[in-house]
Amino acid sequence: MKIGVFGTGTVGQTIGKKLIELGHEVKLGSRTANNDNGSSWAAAVGSRASHGTFADSAAFGELLFNCTPGQASLEVLAAAGEANLRDKVLIDVSNPLDFSKGAPPTLFVGNDDSLGERIQRAHPELKVVKTLNTVNCEVMVDAARVAAGDHTMFLCGNDASAKAQVRELLTGGFGWRDVIDLGDISNARATEALLPIWVRLWGVLKTGDFNLKVVR
Amino acid sequence: MKIGVFGTGTVGQTIGKKLIELGHEVKLGSRTANNDNGSSWAAAVGSRASHGTFADSAAFGELLFNCTPGQASLEVLAAAGEANLRDKVLIDVSNPLDFSKGAPPTLFVGNDDSLGERIQRAHPELKVVKTLNTVNCEVMVDAARVAAGDHTMFLCGNDASAKAQVRELLTGGFGWRDVIDLGDISNARATEALLPIWVRLWGVLKTGDFNLKVVR
Repeated sequence: MKIGVFGTGTVGQTIGKKLIELGHEVKLGSRTANNDNGSSWAAAVGSRASHGTFADSAAFGELLFNCTPGQASLEVLAAAGEANLRDKVLIDVSNPLDFSKGAPPTLFVGNDDSLGERIQRAHPELKVVKTLNTVNCEVMVDAARVAAGDHTMFLCGNDASAKAQVRELLTGGFGWRDVIDLGDISNARATEALLPIWVRLWGVLKTGDFNLKVVR
Repeated sequence: MKIGVFGTGTVGQTIGKKLIELGHEVKLGSRTANNDNGSSWAAAVGSRASHGTFADSAAFGELLFNCTPGQASLEVLAAAGEANLRDKVLIDVSNPLDFSKGAPPTLFVGNDDSLGERIQRAHPELKVVKTLNTVNCEVMVDAARVAAGDHTMFLCGNDASAKAQVRELLTGGFGWRDVIDLGDISNARATEALLPIWVRLWGVLKTGDFNLKVVR
């Protein structure tokens, strides 16, 4: 499958590389077509990897990933262009982190809204599925990295078939064994609200190789 | 030990009963000394159980529990009286839930503050330890009720000896095996922010008998 991944930072590169390993074609997107991160990533990862602008990446992908910093995400999606987004599934792994007030970061949305909903409202014809935002990117693509995968991933979104497609990717190539569907995209409020505990646990545990398991 | 428990609802009654079973003396507190919940609880639970006003309960307790609804907590502590609170440890299990906008509830604090901090700021000489607020009250006092206790409790607060005392209660009588100290009371922002996912999981799982485990 052709997949567009917005963002050429560590998250975009890690997800992009994993998707290539799973046999997909991936075009990373960034502000400029000659972005150094994107070009060196594509050169290193192989022939099915490429790089372009956000609009190039969006036009290329049958499936899309938002791996941009939360504060840039709405602008990135606007740059991708409505015609390139329409009716596609967007896996939103971003978080509304605000680093402007020091560490640990706060969230720039209140608990009666979420970045996932803002993206969905801005692009009503996009099928936004919020997931993977509650772990670091190494764990996102390889759940078994922590405790042989014995922990939980959440997903939410308004479109059932989009969620089924994303669930298949999570439980297939990415190795997730316990995926809980919370319901519509408004549930992104709850998963984005896990970031405050995540950043503090990262500080206490001195590693990003951890996750939450819903024990029941 | 003599323990004052503020609140005569399900949470206060459940915690109070458990503390009695563990050999403590407990006085539940409510607005009025002749509160029906408090009186019938004390009659049912036995000779070491009693009931009075918030001030009576605070004066009685060497250790205190706040089991009141978050929206009432500051008012309750004011009613308890500064002289009755000074230098004591308060275990704050409350949450800043706002039910006024329908279900699921939102939080009435932003992610740059918490109810735990508000209580600490209002009563600087009280040693506030925030814990237990992330599970329902049956699980609070009996961690083994879910998966033989194989899940996590968080605590935070400014006073190290207060936290050590609370940890002993958690790992002793209440059966908690994994207790993570997040640091000072500002970390209540992170544990109170777990309520949005808790209420949604309660809806999905159709039971309150669950908890999060930090898998690492």
